[in-house]
Amino acid sequence: MNVKISERMAGLNPSTIREMHKYTSKPGVISFAAGGPSPEMYPVREMAAIAAELFESSGPALFQYGTSEGFPPLREALRARLLEKYGAGRDYDDLIVVHGGQQVIDLTCKCLCNEGDTVICESPSFIGALNTFRSYRLKLAGIPMDSGGMDMDALETALKTEKNVRFIYTIPDFQNPMGVTLTLERRRRLYELACRYDVMILEDNPYFELRYTGPHVPLIKSLDTEGRVIFAGSVSKVIAPGLRVGYLLAQEELVKKMVVAKQIADVHTNLPIQMFVDSYIRKYDLDAHIGEAIDLYRRKRDCMISRIRALFPPEISCTEPNGGLFIWFDMPEGLSGSDFTEYALKKNVACVPGATFDLAEDRRNRGVRMNFTVPSFEQIERGIEILAGCIGDFLKK
Amino acid sequence: MNVKISERMAGLNPSTIREMHKYTSKPGVISFAAGGPSPEMYPVREMAAIAAELFESSGPALFQYGTSEGFPPLREALRARLLEKYGAGRDYDDLIVVHGGQQVIDLTCKCLCNEGDTVICESPSFIGALNTFRSYRLKLAGIPMDSGGMDMDALETALKTEKNVRFIYTIPDFQNPMGVTLTLERRRRLYELACRYDVMILEDNPYFELRYTGPHVPLIKSLDTEGRVIFAGSVSKVIAPGLRVGYLLAQEELVKKMVVAKQIADVHTNLPIQMFVDSYIRKYDLDAHIGEAIDLYRRKRDCMISRIRALFPPEISCTEPNGGLFIWFDMPEGLSGSDFTEYALKKNVACVPGATFDLAEDRRNRGVRMNFTVPSFEQIERGIEILAGCIGDFLKK
Repeated sequence: MNVKISERMAGLNPSTIREMHKYTSKPGVISFAAGGPSPEMYPVREMAAIAAELFESSGPALFQYGTSEGFPPLREALRARLLEKYGAGRDYDDLIVVHGGQQVIDLTCKCLCNEGDTVICESPSFIGALNTFRSYRLKLAGIPMDSGGMDMDALETALKTEKNVRFIYTIPDFQNPMGVTLTLERRRRLYELACRYDVMILEDNPYFELRYTGPHVPLIKSLDTEGRVIFAGSVSKVIAPGLRVGYLLAQEELVKKMVVAKQIADVHTNLPIQMFVDSYIRKYDLDAHIGEAIDLYRRKRDCMISRIRALFPPEISCTEPNGGLFIWFDMPEGLSGSDFTEYALKKNVACVPGATFDLAEDRRNRGVRMNFTVPSFEQIERGIEILAGCIGDFLKK
Repeated sequence: MNVKISERMAGLNPSTIREMHKYTSKPGVISFAAGGPSPEMYPVREMAAIAAELFESSGPALFQYGTSEGFPPLREALRARLLEKYGAGRDYDDLIVVHGGQQVIDLTCKCLCNEGDTVICESPSFIGALNTFRSYRLKLAGIPMDSGGMDMDALETALKTEKNVRFIYTIPDFQNPMGVTLTLERRRRLYELACRYDVMILEDNPYFELRYTGPHVPLIKSLDTEGRVIFAGSVSKVIAPGLRVGYLLAQEELVKKMVVAKQIADVHTNLPIQMFVDSYIRKYDLDAHIGEAIDLYRRKRDCMISRIRALFPPEISCTEPNGGLFIWFDMPEGLSGSDFTEYALKKNVACVPGATFDLAEDRRNRGVRMNFTVPSFEQIERGIEILAGCIGDFLKK
């Protein structure tokens, strides 16, 4: 039989990035298409020790049904860390643990949006978020970006003209896909605008602790005096992505509904892994671990940028992010990032085309996203050399 | 600020059962309110050995992003088991791993239903499913139950009269909350009716392997010649619930959309736990493990039923399930199960009121659900004695 798919899902396709995994695992392919930390940074030995100890000390308690809010000590540890290190979270806020940052986006849409409502977001933006918004049949209003993040005048215009805006979605630090960071001045203005036009803010911030240069910029959540900001965090980029542990910090009243939404999505987050992560945060020095990752990723970023400067033609410039995982460049006017990445894949280098992050999914999008944290130094050098050759071929056409 | 909740979530309350966990963990409370296996059956030692081995042998591979479909060897193992032992699954079917059986319900609604569509289900039915249906703003059409499961004439009437029915939701084996099993004859008729009226079937079957008496009744999925049945399975009841590992088996075309829905819900299921479960199924004898659980649970069931027969007044009869986790009884005409369970909780015995599973959430529902797998034999004996006293108090009123 042919099954009739719901209207919300009928037009949705698998994420290009998730599909790309099938190619990038082929031997000989250099992948700049990833979106996670370097596997050499996964705390495997520490987690093995924790697992052995917890199986011994907690036994059956690891395997029970847990509360939908998450493992209480982990909630406390994450909340304390956000407050003490970053000044985020007030008395009226609450923190719950979910299956990764992606689930925060899903629960937010479920609790805040009716079909046909509008979400304002950066353009380009994270494909995982865009597809979730599409699945809730939301209208996407995209705000152009420059090296300081979202354009605030364009944001104000959108807030004035768009109907039923429920929230502004932003990845303020080292944005996915562009790598740029929203300036403090703009964060303040964004918050004021959200207050003035009475909309919520979903601050999706999985990368902010991976800063390689420049001073920390305060979290938007730390500016939140009205309970207007939902902060989405994750251990995927600072511990490991396969664990699927994320969290959200938001005003209590909303969190109560998020808990109901979590119950009907998947009951609760996997308990043993929550207990492993809790133990890791309490027994080991997460800051030191992040410090090591920063040292490594900074050198990888510098390596990629220096090779780009040396080998790419001057008409192509890339973003030079202060942190995170991604560098972005645009092909020259008239050339498609999709055509380019398809060509590069034939030469065994995988990058993600800008069309993936384009609100209109337009193949003509000139952008290309490159990850520098996962490939080795040798792969970065060789890969950029190959890409420079590909660009040369393209410019000659 | 006051946040405006979406229409789909505004009226939804936390599950009574999930909220009850807060009371049942108090010392001195005997809980018949659980819905999982007995903690003494969790394979803690085996999982500890597996974890130690996998941390050693697979290291970083445990921590990476996985595919949205699930860990391939686990998918194969689960699929082979369903086919070889239970004759379920055909060439055109595919199996994916998700975060528990609850997530199958969510993904099914997301992919099949538009707002305002109708779902036909047993009345009473599993609260987690009912709340998911409500969150998709679906109309619920309830079919009365007897000791052989759903009434098929009432089902046919509903299929004739209800508009935009997308699927029939059934828990055919040892139904939650009533404990009854859909007969083979009715399964055949249910499938024929689904074909005739061109609707899908969501077979939610987490308990079928926990059969204590009587012969196995074929899965509805094993009767499926048209790709009309979505089978929702889980390791929660046969291994452990805190792992949040479930799976679905359905026709490939639908599964492709389910994978997109999974990507935008939470990217993929926690990888290390999938690898642990895969290893457990391959290295240990799951059938023998289930066999041990069956021996224990059969004795617990028999203990509860014999104490009920001895102590409850004759006007109250309970279901006598051939498997699963639950026994159900109705209070006499005119008495509310909700009033009764509230009273019993004051006497330190927790049961779940029928109103929880009532499609109209009607407090006057006379039903009471009791779990017999989690409490000890001593707790079963003492708890039934206390409940018998409570019933006596109620009948005297």
